[in-house]
Amino acid sequence: MTTWRADLLSDTLTRPTPAMRQAMAHAEVGDDVFGEDPTVRALEERVAGLLGHEAGLFTPTGSMANQLGLRLHVRPGEELVCDSLAHVVRAELGAAAVFSGISSRTWTAPRGLLDPADPIALLQNGVGPYQVCTALVVVENTHNFGGGTVQPIEAIRAVRAATQPRGVAMHLDGARLWNAHIASGVALAEYAAHVDTVSVCLSKGLGAPVGSVLLGSADAMAQARIWRKRYGGGMRQVGILAAAGLHALDHHVDRLADDHARARRAAEAFAEAAPGCIDPATVQTNIVMLSTAATGWTPADLVAAASAQGVRGYAAGPALVRLVWHLDVDDEATAYAIDVLTALLRERPGPQL
Amino acid sequence: MTTWRADLLSDTLTRPTPAMRQAMAHAEVGDDVFGEDPTVRALEERVAGLLGHEAGLFTPTGSMANQLGLRLHVRPGEELVCDSLAHVVRAELGAAAVFSGISSRTWTAPRGLLDPADPIALLQNGVGPYQVCTALVVVENTHNFGGGTVQPIEAIRAVRAATQPRGVAMHLDGARLWNAHIASGVALAEYAAHVDTVSVCLSKGLGAPVGSVLLGSADAMAQARIWRKRYGGGMRQVGILAAAGLHALDHHVDRLADDHARARRAAEAFAEAAPGCIDPATVQTNIVMLSTAATGWTPADLVAAASAQGVRGYAAGPALVRLVWHLDVDDEATAYAIDVLTALLRERPGPQL
Amino acid sequence: MTTWRADLLSDTLTRPTPAMRQAMAHAEVGDDVFGEDPTVRALEERVAGLLGHEAGLFTPTGSMANQLGLRLHVRPGEELVCDSLAHVVRAELGAAAVFSGISSRTWTAPRGLLDPADPIALLQNGVGPYQVCTALVVVENTHNFGGGTVQPIEAIRAVRAATQPRGVAMHLDGARLWNAHIASGVALAEYAAHVDTVSVCLSKGLGAPVGSVLLGSADAMAQARIWRKRYGGGMRQVGILAAAGLHALDHHVDRLADDHARARRAAEAFAEAAPGCIDPATVQTNIVMLSTAATGWTPADLVAAASAQGVRGYAAGPALVRLVWHLDVDDEATAYAIDVLTALLRERPGPQL
Amino acid sequence: MTTWRADLLSDTLTRPTPAMRQAMAHAEVGDDVFGEDPTVRALEERVAGLLGHEAGLFTPTGSMANQLGLRLHVRPGEELVCDSLAHVVRAELGAAAVFSGISSRTWTAPRGLLDPADPIALLQNGVGPYQVCTALVVVENTHNFGGGTVQPIEAIRAVRAATQPRGVAMHLDGARLWNAHIASGVALAEYAAHVDTVSVCLSKGLGAPVGSVLLGSADAMAQARIWRKRYGGGMRQVGILAAAGLHALDHHVDRLADDHARARRAAEAFAEAAPGCIDPATVQTNIVMLSTAATGWTPADLVAAASAQGVRGYAAGPALVRLVWHLDVDDEATAYAIDVLTALLRERPGPQL
Repeated sequence: MTTWRADLLSDTLTRPTPAMRQAMAHAEVGDDVFGEDPTVRALEERVAGLLGHEAGLFTPTGSMANQLGLRLHVRPGEELVCDSLAHVVRAELGAAAVFSGISSRTWTAPRGLLDPADPIALLQNGVGPYQVCTALVVVENTHNFGGGTVQPIEAIRAVRAATQPRGVAMHLDGARLWNAHIASGVALAEYAAHVDTVSVCLSKGLGAPVGSVLLGSADAMAQARIWRKRYGGGMRQVGILAAAGLHALDHHVDRLADDHARARRAAEAFAEAAPGCIDPATVQTNIVMLSTAATGWTPADLVAAASAQGVRGYAAGPALVRLVWHLDVDDEATAYAIDVLTALLRERPGPQL
Repeated sequence: MTTWRADLLSDTLTRPTPAMRQAMAHAEVGDDVFGEDPTVRALEERVAGLLGHEAGLFTPTGSMANQLGLRLHVRPGEELVCDSLAHVVRAELGAAAVFSGISSRTWTAPRGLLDPADPIALLQNGVGPYQVCTALVVVENTHNFGGGTVQPIEAIRAVRAATQPRGVAMHLDGARLWNAHIASGVALAEYAAHVDTVSVCLSKGLGAPVGSVLLGSADAMAQARIWRKRYGGGMRQVGILAAAGLHALDHHVDRLADDHARARRAAEAFAEAAPGCIDPATVQTNIVMLSTAATGWTPADLVAAASAQGVRGYAAGPALVRLVWHLDVDDEATAYAIDVLTALLRERPGPQL
Repeated sequence: MTTWRADLLSDTLTRPTPAMRQAMAHAEVGDDVFGEDPTVRALEERVAGLLGHEAGLFTPTGSMANQLGLRLHVRPGEELVCDSLAHVVRAELGAAAVFSGISSRTWTAPRGLLDPADPIALLQNGVGPYQVCTALVVVENTHNFGGGTVQPIEAIRAVRAATQPRGVAMHLDGARLWNAHIASGVALAEYAAHVDTVSVCLSKGLGAPVGSVLLGSADAMAQARIWRKRYGGGMRQVGILAAAGLHALDHHVDRLADDHARARRAAEAFAEAAPGCIDPATVQTNIVMLSTAATGWTPADLVAAASAQGVRGYAAGPALVRLVWHLDVDDEATAYAIDVLTALLRERPGPQL
Repeated sequence: MTTWRADLLSDTLTRPTPAMRQAMAHAEVGDDVFGEDPTVRALEERVAGLLGHEAGLFTPTGSMANQLGLRLHVRPGEELVCDSLAHVVRAELGAAAVFSGISSRTWTAPRGLLDPADPIALLQNGVGPYQVCTALVVVENTHNFGGGTVQPIEAIRAVRAATQPRGVAMHLDGARLWNAHIASGVALAEYAAHVDTVSVCLSKGLGAPVGSVLLGSADAMAQARIWRKRYGGGMRQVGILAAAGLHALDHHVDRLADDHARARRAAEAFAEAAPGCIDPATVQTNIVMLSTAATGWTPADLVAAASAQGVRGYAAGPALVRLVWHLDVDDEATAYAIDVLTALLRERPGPQL
């Protein structure tokens, strides 16, 4: 296994810190399938409290948390609407259709930024049983493939104002909601107040090894708990993992600001090295989406060249390289990544003809 | 049951003519589940010939023909892309997700008109197993909810040129392909040459009581035949219905021009009565989509008022009334519908405040 | 296409009689998707009346009628129980699992004959959300793969008495319920009184070319109507086919006794020719299941040899040949089939070693 | 939360030992979605080696391991066969049908004991596309609801001999295969040699907090890995949990003999206290299934009475109480449970009338 000097592949890579390992080693546990794991319960209650929802449910992954949330709202034959780069339609392997029979329609959103007019234009309900009813709008905050974009709270409120009277639910894919909160200063509970269910991840920026939490009403979570077992997600003494989540909530939320600052710093350096490859003002959180169109590089070549020097990124599309900052990328690693990548970007001044 | 003086609700309403009934009454039949119905075979071969595909499969409905086609191309976990008003995502009750586990993403197309850039921008394939692969582009021609829009053959060719090298299939929802052919003069086989599968309907403009045909390769149709039985569509002496389809192909294709002329004539009258409610130039086939936004009517009220005078239409959206011409609406009924609707449109000059 | 002197492959083969064709040719029709086909409505009401259920729903096939019935009672994650040779688990291509997510467990029943103890022993409900709940018992009457077995009305009553208090529903697969009624003299409505939904077929012994009817409560049928469209079974001017069904109800029910008598006569001849191949007392209706074990024939060889002389049967298992009597097999064809088959059976006296 | 003096509810209850916690605290980890967790890899390779299969896949639960295994072999529309009390059809919430469209048929097996004639009698394949093809036989060893029954290796071999030539696959639900191995002395690899895939659990008798492993060919595991992510089981630094599994393999396999001895000792005491409630000879491993029929107790009452004295069991059916021995039930706890339960059993000598 390669040792990277700056591993910017994803914020899922974070390894538990020694203190987090200690928390796990001493976690009180029980059989969570029987509802007897006190650490899992504590985590579920804590996150529910933070987000202002009635109850929480621990899941092995963010994908499972999202999928359990979606199916609470959308019956087979109904649809959800979301933007065309949303994680739920791009990166959960089609699970909503495969397992829950959920149809989807999408709008196009530059950088994944929510414009309330887009979902509102797609809504179809009260159209009789022979047309597909829109049952759910999904909003992703921050938006992963959009480049860590923070959704404006006003936009979320505007969608809610249009959908709630029509009986259309909202789900917030908040895998990186912590980053949105730190970047914008908007309270977690304020983001969560306008939706029926939310998922949040403990294993991305927060640095826990495994785990997500779904939030919603107590009734909804009771249903989701049954479906969690059907999906094969009913783990036993999983307080071991929940303990890491609790530790992360105590110690790793505020420090996300460091990731954001480092990502912005890098973006500024890249923009200087290769004008047009990124607008640093769009780097609101921990993700940098480099456009290679104006650089003379293909994503695969740029990723390979950086990799050869110990910097790992991700070829995220036909002209995009994604770089993600996280707990295990410090100032030194950031400086090194900036050195390597700016040198590479300068090497090929513009598109090759 | 009401007797309408002009029933413009849908072209699915057509009743078999006396000659068509005779053809049905004398049809030679057998058990089609065992492949022994000669009239069904004749119809499948005839339509396959017309569209230049290897084989055909008779189905009870256009929805089943489409659904069988979609699942030939898209495995669970993969996606299709289409426009956001396509019949396959709006009016087939979410069957693609419910029964086939097919994800979908959509682009927005005014009047349903195909712009090749739209599907091409959405395509994602070769992105690894953890992202959803685009396996199919669906094009609808003519476009029902778009108002009978004929898709430009150049646009279809352009999508094919972009998708074929990437291994992405194409399905043509040709429920009203006959109308596109008559309106544009483009051969049926030319439209069908650029796609892997096509569905066509015999029970809409063509006037057969029941039935559609799916076209594709012989292998694909053999697979679809098995799935047709799984869907509950394996009928027995169904040559009775196929005979109506054969009769329609002999006698009811060219006459679609009359429906188109009547629809255009009506649109011109409506545009004169209520400027802005319709651009007659967009009425290419047998469907008139009246925008009520500028008329002072809600769709429901306009439909109700026309209905009270024996003219039936369909409130197709928050500001749309759809009127469809067909075999059972002649010049006299058209004149009557024009009289009724223009009077109503003139009654309320502009939006109510 | 071969012309058979006695086609005993299946009772699905029947071709419409001239009188039935006349009925179809003159059927009053409308668009049944909009609920406007008067002949379909008349058929649905007539069958509902005959079976004493509140409402009916016409479907293109018996499989679709069954599948719509099953999903009314069993939610994803719940199960149905039935015997291991039931049509719903053997011959509907797994549709209950594929389309409705329905689990199944089975009991073994010689000749498909219902012993109430079998389903009762399998019932599991009130066992909490983490174990599969039995939601439905399916009974098939007459039992196709069991050899046309008529289910004792007492056995049906006993299952109902055990299941109803526990909230477990019952569905009757009555594709050949007409045969059970004629053979036993038990009223159709008496059979149907003990179940929540029933399907009956018009296209088997009754001789209509296409069509089945699902019966149940008005609410249940309203739900099933929506799902029928989702399955692709929402046909338009389908009164053409319903007219054949009405004609069959008027003219082809009582005559099933002739089919039963011919089948019994043949069974007696076969038993004499090859003792042990069939117990004629078990031939209660129109199906003869010949056991080839004691005859020296393999099913495939016996079917092929008969076929060469114009008699068609079906190799129904590793040691079974099925022969089915119906409207298009008269006394003469029966006599011929008896001659051919008894000669073949006598040709090989006992198993080959 | 109650503290039990003998918690015999399930062997899923085991809590990690201090040494196991140390192993977890020091586990080397990486992102397992990217295949970079060395401890997970080590566990997968180790278990694959023990069972003689090519590759392994770590999963959060035994249910997910089974479900991933089943879908490798059975396509939508095909079926698996198993006994009517098998975990895969009773206790996985119908997931095989819901998520994979898998049909099932079952045979009845006293104590869950495999008789090869039963699956062989149900097999149907090569029967054409319109009948359901049997694609898989599932065997559970030891059999949970059967009372910890060890399957005879000869029976497994006999099923394999019959199914392999017909192209029917076998899956072994080996959640408690460790117990079968210890009880019978048959090597793990010998049990696993006759099947295409196996699942084993680390979180039951072995005492790890979470985790199971699916075994099969490298190709099969590569497919299962993708589906694991679709199910929401793609965890990140999950080596923390895998370390517990490795520790359990080192330290907790041989000691299962203690659980078996304690269960047998208890069964003997129960049989003496209430003749007919259990045949001690059937207690082969760690599960005791008490029949309450002859005791005068209902399962619920007996469980409640024991619970009031600190002994926890499970009302497993209308006349069954299940007691399970495991790592956290030592000799002292066993002696206490025997005292409490024998006293209760003696209290009510025979069924109440």
